[in-house]
Amino acid sequence: MAAVRTIDWVDGAVVILDQTALPHEVRSLTLTDVDGLADAIRRLAVRGAPALGAAGALGVLLALRQARAEDWDDAGLATALDRLRRARPTAVNLAWGVDRVTARLPQGEDAVMAEALAVLEEDVAVNRAMGQRGADLVEALCGGRPAGLRLHTHCNAGGLAAVEVGTALEVVRALHARGRVERVYADETRPLLQGSRLTAWELDRMGADYRVVVDGAGPSLIARGLVDAVVVGSDRIAASGDVANKIGTYPLALAAAREGVPFVVVAPESTIDPRTRDGAAIAIEDRDPEEVLAWGGVRVAPAGAEAVNPAFDVTPADLVTAIVTERRVVRPSAGERP
Amino acid sequence: MAAVRTIDWVDGAVVILDQTALPHEVRSLTLTDVDGLADAIRRLAVRGAPALGAAGALGVLLALRQARAEDWDDAGLATALDRLRRARPTAVNLAWGVDRVTARLPQGEDAVMAEALAVLEEDVAVNRAMGQRGADLVEALCGGRPAGLRLHTHCNAGGLAAVEVGTALEVVRALHARGRVERVYADETRPLLQGSRLTAWELDRMGADYRVVVDGAGPSLIARGLVDAVVVGSDRIAASGDVANKIGTYPLALAAAREGVPFVVVAPESTIDPRTRDGAAIAIEDRDPEEVLAWGGVRVAPAGAEAVNPAFDVTPADLVTAIVTERRVVRPSAGERP
Repeated sequence: MAAVRTIDWVDGAVVILDQTALPHEVRSLTLTDVDGLADAIRRLAVRGAPALGAAGALGVLLALRQARAEDWDDAGLATALDRLRRARPTAVNLAWGVDRVTARLPQGEDAVMAEALAVLEEDVAVNRAMGQRGADLVEALCGGRPAGLRLHTHCNAGGLAAVEVGTALEVVRALHARGRVERVYADETRPLLQGSRLTAWELDRMGADYRVVVDGAGPSLIARGLVDAVVVGSDRIAASGDVANKIGTYPLALAAAREGVPFVVVAPESTIDPRTRDGAAIAIEDRDPEEVLAWGGVRVAPAGAEAVNPAFDVTPADLVTAIVTERRVVRPSAGERP
Repeated sequence: MAAVRTIDWVDGAVVILDQTALPHEVRSLTLTDVDGLADAIRRLAVRGAPALGAAGALGVLLALRQARAEDWDDAGLATALDRLRRARPTAVNLAWGVDRVTARLPQGEDAVMAEALAVLEEDVAVNRAMGQRGADLVEALCGGRPAGLRLHTHCNAGGLAAVEVGTALEVVRALHARGRVERVYADETRPLLQGSRLTAWELDRMGADYRVVVDGAGPSLIARGLVDAVVVGSDRIAASGDVANKIGTYPLALAAAREGVPFVVVAPESTIDPRTRDGAAIAIEDRDPEEVLAWGGVRVAPAGAEAVNPAFDVTPADLVTAIVTERRVVRPSAGERP
């Protein structure tokens, strides 16, 4: 099965797989200006912490070329990069990607392009390594279960959330390749249904046995002994080991801790933000209430109803069995700090 | 504001407010045979533990009249009542309503009708009493908060889940009438969205300040200190104090226990089933996976995707601060048993 490239640099433009159209349509978007890229990020046409890192990196290259073509001054370029950097506040990887490539601006376009493309290639290599380390860890943590593993994941931390190779879902894929997966439960992940749209699509292509469940069902599946490990990605990990991830992650961690089920976070080192002290310091993006009040384009709630729509929650370190990065395994619930 | 009668006996038929059409359309269904009633129950056109008790009670009256009109023998009547009784397995109230009125069959139709109508009138009176007792309890439990209360509820335990006056939402209404409610958070309650469709509709009519949230958001709202008490209904309470309620309730209880936020279950005595030892003995209804994979006619997941769709979860007694019935307050987390 050919790998899908979620985001890439093609002929002077950022080309993304439009994730708002999946799974019913596989459609690309070609973005030739930085504000268009920022808009695609806000609309979640490209999303997922590692993919946002790549988007930030390529965005600097795009902005630099646009600055030349449109004769921007340095202040204009800086302002455009700042708009890009702030397109989504919670995932640290977006800012990380912008900052990493921005540091090359004094060296000119070739250096910028090399650095941006390096971010993409490193993402693939890093996530592949993480997948193996995470699979080893999950096997070890579930050593008591000789039968196939029943895994639970939330949102989409797959190849679609990265350049090509996922984070948490790469652990699932690696375990599946080892013949160790009996069943994957995928939360649908309201409001934007990344689980039933994107993770289901990836699991389907992977050939894994999976079931979509509503977000409210995950904790009770864990309580009923149907889950051997929870494996999720992250958008920002604080110095304390508190983990921000898609809204609905925290309930899984609560249930897993009560049942003694491992709760494993899989994320690159770039997701760890030592400047964020703890979960309370993580800015939680509040998105448009209309995402909650409608479902699949169908208005659900009464006219005039209001909603709040926090896009992320924070799982405190004491509920996190392990954080797996490309370099190491950290065990926050045992007192270790990233 | 006129009360809405969710279920009633009108001119020899069971008339229900069709809850599949709300909030966009207020439409009644007139059911003149017992299998049609059972079908309406399965489709959730009428739902909610107390309303199902009333449906079971009126169903016996309907079946008796149908038996006369269509010349059924006793075995035919018994079979029809058994089908009705089993239309939904988790809510004990349906079987309770059928059994209570079936006991009057030897006394003839007038006695059956009197008993069935008594079930309806008692439901109204009982829930009104529960609402006041629950409001008193919540005020006492949140005594430390002089400002308005921020309440969180799940699914729909309002008048639409009962004959006319709700359970958990009647506590909210009573507190609102006392000027004690600052904000109500209503989980949308996937897959069938009883929260965003039905609870939002009722809160709107009540004039309360409310916000719909996705099911995954509730636990983190509690963790962020935005909720003073969680108030939910129940479909079956075991002798142990374990509480079955709509899928997605258990995560709220986990989060509430961690934060020391009261988790209050409001249900009539008829919901307590002393013959069910504990939560593990409660049959959990598994519903059609299509409810998860599509909504309102819009398919979300890829073709071929599968889902599991447990309709209820079980909150263990140690996480339940209080059960409020029309007669008493039981405190399972303090070791009391219903």
